[in-house]
Amino acid sequence: MIKFAQFGAGFIGKIHGANIARHPGSELSYIYDVNTAAAEELALKRGAKVASSPEEIWTSDVDAVLIASSTNTHAELLSCAIKAGKPAYCEKPIDLDINMVKNIVQQAQNTTLPILVGFSRRFDANHLGIRQAFQNGDIGKLEMMHITARDPKPPVLAYIKVSGGQYRDQTIHFFDMLRWLTGEDPVEVYAVGAALIDAAIGEAGDVDTSMLILKFPSGALCHINCSRRADYGYDEQVELFGSKGMAISRRKPRREVSIYKGESVISDGAYPGWFERMEPTFYQVLDAFIKAVQGEATEYPTLMDGLKAQIIAEAAYESLKANKPIQITYWQPE
Amino acid sequence: MIKFAQFGAGFIGKIHGANIARHPGSELSYIYDVNTAAAEELALKRGAKVASSPEEIWTSDVDAVLIASSTNTHAELLSCAIKAGKPAYCEKPIDLDINMVKNIVQQAQNTTLPILVGFSRRFDANHLGIRQAFQNGDIGKLEMMHITARDPKPPVLAYIKVSGGQYRDQTIHFFDMLRWLTGEDPVEVYAVGAALIDAAIGEAGDVDTSMLILKFPSGALCHINCSRRADYGYDEQVELFGSKGMAISRRKPRREVSIYKGESVISDGAYPGWFERMEPTFYQVLDAFIKAVQGEATEYPTLMDGLKAQIIAEAAYESLKANKPIQITYWQPE
Amino acid sequence: MIKFAQFGAGFIGKIHGANIARHPGSELSYIYDVNTAAAEELALKRGAKVASSPEEIWTSDVDAVLIASSTNTHAELLSCAIKAGKPAYCEKPIDLDINMVKNIVQQAQNTTLPILVGFSRRFDANHLGIRQAFQNGDIGKLEMMHITARDPKPPVLAYIKVSGGQYRDQTIHFFDMLRWLTGEDPVEVYAVGAALIDAAIGEAGDVDTSMLILKFPSGALCHINCSRRADYGYDEQVELFGSKGMAISRRKPRREVSIYKGESVISDGAYPGWFERMEPTFYQVLDAFIKAVQGEATEYPTLMDGLKAQIIAEAAYESLKANKPIQITYWQPE
Amino acid sequence: MIKFAQFGAGFIGKIHGANIARHPGSELSYIYDVNTAAAEELALKRGAKVASSPEEIWTSDVDAVLIASSTNTHAELLSCAIKAGKPAYCEKPIDLDINMVKNIVQQAQNTTLPILVGFSRRFDANHLGIRQAFQNGDIGKLEMMHITARDPKPPVLAYIKVSGGQYRDQTIHFFDMLRWLTGEDPVEVYAVGAALIDAAIGEAGDVDTSMLILKFPSGALCHINCSRRADYGYDEQVELFGSKGMAISRRKPRREVSIYKGESVISDGAYPGWFERMEPTFYQVLDAFIKAVQGEATEYPTLMDGLKAQIIAEAAYESLKANKPIQITYWQPE
Repeated sequence: MIKFAQFGAGFIGKIHGANIARHPGSELSYIYDVNTAAAEELALKRGAKVASSPEEIWTSDVDAVLIASSTNTHAELLSCAIKAGKPAYCEKPIDLDINMVKNIVQQAQNTTLPILVGFSRRFDANHLGIRQAFQNGDIGKLEMMHITARDPKPPVLAYIKVSGGQYRDQTIHFFDMLRWLTGEDPVEVYAVGAALIDAAIGEAGDVDTSMLILKFPSGALCHINCSRRADYGYDEQVELFGSKGMAISRRKPRREVSIYKGESVISDGAYPGWFERMEPTFYQVLDAFIKAVQGEATEYPTLMDGLKAQIIAEAAYESLKANKPIQITYWQPE
Repeated sequence: MIKFAQFGAGFIGKIHGANIARHPGSELSYIYDVNTAAAEELALKRGAKVASSPEEIWTSDVDAVLIASSTNTHAELLSCAIKAGKPAYCEKPIDLDINMVKNIVQQAQNTTLPILVGFSRRFDANHLGIRQAFQNGDIGKLEMMHITARDPKPPVLAYIKVSGGQYRDQTIHFFDMLRWLTGEDPVEVYAVGAALIDAAIGEAGDVDTSMLILKFPSGALCHINCSRRADYGYDEQVELFGSKGMAISRRKPRREVSIYKGESVISDGAYPGWFERMEPTFYQVLDAFIKAVQGEATEYPTLMDGLKAQIIAEAAYESLKANKPIQITYWQPE
Repeated sequence: MIKFAQFGAGFIGKIHGANIARHPGSELSYIYDVNTAAAEELALKRGAKVASSPEEIWTSDVDAVLIASSTNTHAELLSCAIKAGKPAYCEKPIDLDINMVKNIVQQAQNTTLPILVGFSRRFDANHLGIRQAFQNGDIGKLEMMHITARDPKPPVLAYIKVSGGQYRDQTIHFFDMLRWLTGEDPVEVYAVGAALIDAAIGEAGDVDTSMLILKFPSGALCHINCSRRADYGYDEQVELFGSKGMAISRRKPRREVSIYKGESVISDGAYPGWFERMEPTFYQVLDAFIKAVQGEATEYPTLMDGLKAQIIAEAAYESLKANKPIQITYWQPE
Repeated sequence: MIKFAQFGAGFIGKIHGANIARHPGSELSYIYDVNTAAAEELALKRGAKVASSPEEIWTSDVDAVLIASSTNTHAELLSCAIKAGKPAYCEKPIDLDINMVKNIVQQAQNTTLPILVGFSRRFDANHLGIRQAFQNGDIGKLEMMHITARDPKPPVLAYIKVSGGQYRDQTIHFFDMLRWLTGEDPVEVYAVGAALIDAAIGEAGDVDTSMLILKFPSGALCHINCSRRADYGYDEQVELFGSKGMAISRRKPRREVSIYKGESVISDGAYPGWFERMEPTFYQVLDAFIKAVQGEATEYPTLMDGLKAQIIAEAAYESLKANKPIQITYWQPE
């Protein structure tokens, strides 16, 4: 039984807490949140203690930590976890400042501690299905890849201003996904975008509608289209096209209901939001992390995966500003 | 080049005439219709002669006849074609009076003349697809079969009164189809039905909404549901369920257009009518008939197929009236 | 917080126990199972006590009981629950002996205790979707209904022998479903069936492949096809056809993955079994029961619903044996 | 009745000849082909005369010409048609040399003769469906557009060398389509591509796998992905994403056949080639042209549409070579 301490008792913290309780191999021992009332509520429901400070956690007997607090606390908590020798499951992103991320990657360089960055789409059954098909050779050599990534509506402007922008906040999931699906690190990116949905997003220096093309070392090409608003809900679809066929992780409908009426068939459309669509993956990520903590050989997104996705996002912004393709240069710790 | 004489220049006659003109192996030589103006119009468009009487056709050098005149003329024309030694493509049904049909089958008993009854659904690409799958063994031994057969709207009451009723007029296509798909002649039928769409249909002694169950000698079961009116258009779907899988000839959508809007996906629904849905099959039937006339070994619906479908329809009406399952007894010419 | 005592710690008992733990409004206080080891294991995981006897539960302060023990204990436990005034959530069937069921219905006649029978399909999102569409008037007046119900493989023969047979064990879910979807009690049933999958099932006096037609008071017709084995997994689909359109609760695919290769598109098929397909409904049923216990007006399957489904099953067996349609006579407590 | 003279009796010429014969408003009077045997065969089948020279056609009483001869003859024949005052339906492209195209546009500048360039996809029912939806306002203001365009296999190398390359030969259809669907002329294009399918295509100076992004004056973005080879057949799909929804002209399956077997559903995939997929459009194009010749107000692709598509193709090649986005400058006749 893996004993967890968890940082953060907000919306996503409650999900993690429930999953830790539900998983047969884990239990929640401590919860810490600067919002003490939230921490207490979650602790009560899950039979955990409220930690009076992070220090209480680092010196406790917990087997692992789950970091679901606000982004600006991730780097410091990861640093403490590494020092304390506690495996860590950290929500993405690691930090908006890429130098902070490199710093953490450097600190973790000589440890074998499981540190997982929460790119939960890697655990989606549909995406896993096309990855498996590709790895089985079902579609041959990869030639083209397409990712559709559309949120139902833009976040509030206040959030957009501190989010790092569309590529660091939204597209970043797919920068990770394309690496994970293909096993390749892209070498060049071209990004175009505009604030077509809300002029205020443009005035805040960001874009809300983007198209990108990335090149892989193998010669394969990848297209991403990304919107902050789809009237019909959360839309995510991925296509891998290769020399012997194509694999699609299709738009997932909300339900399998169809009404035939007049000249039309009216079927259920998309999920209302990313969370409803991706909710089952959180349990799967936790399960992978628990296996890693228990010493099983298992695959999960690492700190370096988190860093690489952010490096691609930086290059995408550079391309957007220059209106030309940009070479992507990765970074290695010493 | 097969020279055709055609009886009938109405709606379906024009379709046959155009297909004879379009087919590289055939040409239209004569056309006969009691409506001389219609015959002349079709003859002009297709470069054919108007026959002054059926006799002119039977003594001409035409290689084959296409009978697309009204149902009550079919038996007599088939009888003449047999005597004249002219291969015949005859629209269904052969005759509403089953004794007349037996009579024709008896007359044709000792001839090898190609005589084709126009069960065009046997030539539909989708239905052919599931038949092939079944014959290939893809679904193993047949256990259950389902047929959905729904017209967009009832014919006018005047037609219903002379049509022979739902089973002899509409369901009959599917009595033929189930024999053709399975290679078995059903041995028992249970039919229930009611006039749910229009009480006047009930007053005329007919039903408009029916469900049937048929048993095959192999033990397999078949369900048919049949409606004279589907608000959303012409609906035809067939499912073969076997020991190793299932094959479906799916509802065919009018177009592959989808609109994602709000919570729904609005896609194109069914075809407006059976003709729009089945139009391509008429050319395929003609092609099979031409091959048969040219002496190629080819498969097509015969007079005996026409008779058997009608025998099943008779048994279905008997079941409907008695509200109990009825054994089906077939008939053989001497 | 509703305190639960649960009877049964087997496969389905573990599911119920986990859902009681996960639900924010409930907790598991007692668990009873004749298999004490199983009871102890579940109690430990969920923080509950093992009851030394059913009596300990009836005299405890629990707010409700969940009966997930073997079928032959249901009637007695329900009887005790009624006497003890404890709301009960009982897995189906109530009892294989229909007189026992009537007896329980009679006992519960003058109580307002929430007693829920576990017809979980009533809580499936897809089925709820077509029910809503029908109730909204989207498809007009109901005329035909189709239910496809196929299990991936037959249960072991030993189970079949004590299960009550295909209609009392498998089809019964759909006898309930058709009442729930239409709001009508069928008045006549015709059933045909055979042991096409395994001759031993036939030798045991049962069938494994069936087709049924039921008539509703409104004149609408309902077809059910039911197989104990679908090579491709668990298959459940429901279609409501009415005067203004059709609503389908479609086959639910396991995943939304498609591989385009050669001439085919290979997509994910059905779920491996009913449990994987229906798993989310168990939480929904529990939620409805908790609401009922808390006094909220909520809809759920009652003892009388359980009885009516069994009465239809009895009539279906009578029809199967007699090979003729059978009138269905319901029963009312005094 | 519109009398046609046709240039070209090859594969596509036979299709046009059959459609002229089939259309109720047209007949084929003359056929010219440098391959006299081919001309004679088509003339015989369709009841037309073989013209001994193009001049015989220009001085004849034909109402219109259909130019389906080899590309290098199009410009000269169009020039003659303009001088002779004969409406012309010309297969695309007008000429591989863009200056020749401008020359023809200039010559046609002061005529009102119907001159149609054969971009047949404008007449596809599915593409028309999403155009209608967009024009109806169903998807609001356009923001993103996606075109998938994949041929089943590359043409022979000898053809590729004279074809003008992937963008002038294959992608050009979609440069026209995006203008037609959106009503906007793109202002910038970025193209990346490689010879991933066959190195010999690269050695011949061309690419076989490409991704492009185009910008519209409205700010909307368009992505095209284009391959010379899809293992699974001909693949064409178009998506319009707007402020209020999305419209998709979906991949059209060859048939509506599905086999459920084991864990999979195996359905019919794509058409074997563009011709099988697009065949019905040729009749529609001819019908539009006949209407135009008869003086009806009707929409069809013009010489200027042909020129604009080629101008975009030129800019795409410039972008491919420079690996940077290129502004598109259109041209107007004096």
